[in-house]
Amino acid sequence: MVNLISKQGKTGENVSQRDNILRVSAALFAEKGYQAVGVAEIGEAVRLGRGALYYHIGSKEELLFDIVIQYITSLVSVGTQILRDVDSPEERIRELSRHMMLVVVDNLSELSVCFRETESLTGQRHQDVAAQHAKYQGLWAETLADGYKKGVFRLLPPVALKGLLGMYFHSFLWLNPHGKSTAREIADIFSDMVLRAARD
Amino acid sequence: MVNLISKQGKTGENVSQRDNILRVSAALFAEKGYQAVGVAEIGEAVRLGRGALYYHIGSKEELLFDIVIQYITSLVSVGTQILRDVDSPEERIRELSRHMMLVVVDNLSELSVCFRETESLTGQRHQDVAAQHAKYQGLWAETLADGYKKGVFRLLPPVALKGLLGMYFHSFLWLNPHGKSTAREIADIFSDMVLRAARD
Repeated sequence: MVNLISKQGKTGENVSQRDNILRVSAALFAEKGYQAVGVAEIGEAVRLGRGALYYHIGSKEELLFDIVIQYITSLVSVGTQILRDVDSPEERIRELSRHMMLVVVDNLSELSVCFRETESLTGQRHQDVAAQHAKYQGLWAETLADGYKKGVFRLLPPVALKGLLGMYFHSFLWLNPHGKSTAREIADIFSDMVLRAARD
Repeated sequence: MVNLISKQGKTGENVSQRDNILRVSAALFAEKGYQAVGVAEIGEAVRLGRGALYYHIGSKEELLFDIVIQYITSLVSVGTQILRDVDSPEERIRELSRHMMLVVVDNLSELSVCFRETESLTGQRHQDVAAQHAKYQGLWAETLADGYKKGVFRLLPPVALKGLLGMYFHSFLWLNPHGKSTAREIADIFSDMVLRAARD
């Protein structure tokens, strides 16, 4: 029986089972907070017993790590691309803003968890995710610094960037993917405010 | 024995016991999330048995309500005062910003809980707190609208105000009351960004 389950684990069917577990867990973590959700509750939500569930997830913390790391790594990788491809600091801010909001509306739970539950990770997992978060914020900081060097932005105190990014990170709590404004519209309203804050 | 505890409940000693329970619970809720904290954990943290604790708190939800309602009500009441006393929309924004940040650094856990756990309340308690939150955001909206009428601000889309307030509400996650910048300095950096966003 165990072998049979193991074999199924290598089929396409179970890859999507794993995706389903990640999706459902992210929604539970986003709604109730990581610490308030037990493995039993996840099992019930995906209709798997304890053994079958643990076969897919390893541990609850590994599950959190797997949800978080893919999104923050992808934000860093696309953001790095934007810095490489786009020369104007103002246009970079607009593109960083659009990319983040587009990812957010399609993956609201995952991004909420990604930006709110880093402290629930421990050891190497915490270090890995925290390093990616720092890299991501670094892309914005580098863009602002580049704009200052080019004479289009003023020198912003670090606390100002923290505030501006907070505008985005807090939006995960109230954003409605089916609301009146599109992700692109919100992104452009936000980047307009970042640019107004940054311009000399 | 029960009577003795009841009597003690009416002395000054136990008023401060109650304040202590509110303070400790707010710290636990802020750190782990309301849903993840059990009554037993609160009892351990304040060194009270179940019976003695319930004498003071009624229920866990009542405790959450008591933590939240006093801060949001006081923010609304001081904010209303600011709108009444200060005529210039720009100066109002600065004063609203300073007041919020001053309350926050002294009551970081309480304010985090106040702005993050409203959805954990139910029924009338939820309605009461949600109404105060709406009033508070309304004070900022009214100030922006007044600035528009007076010709000093542009007409901001509602989503812009949500973003700007998110700057503050997210700061509860990273603010260090013992950090390099004072509450007043951060408040003025933030209100400067709000004004840059709002000015025509």
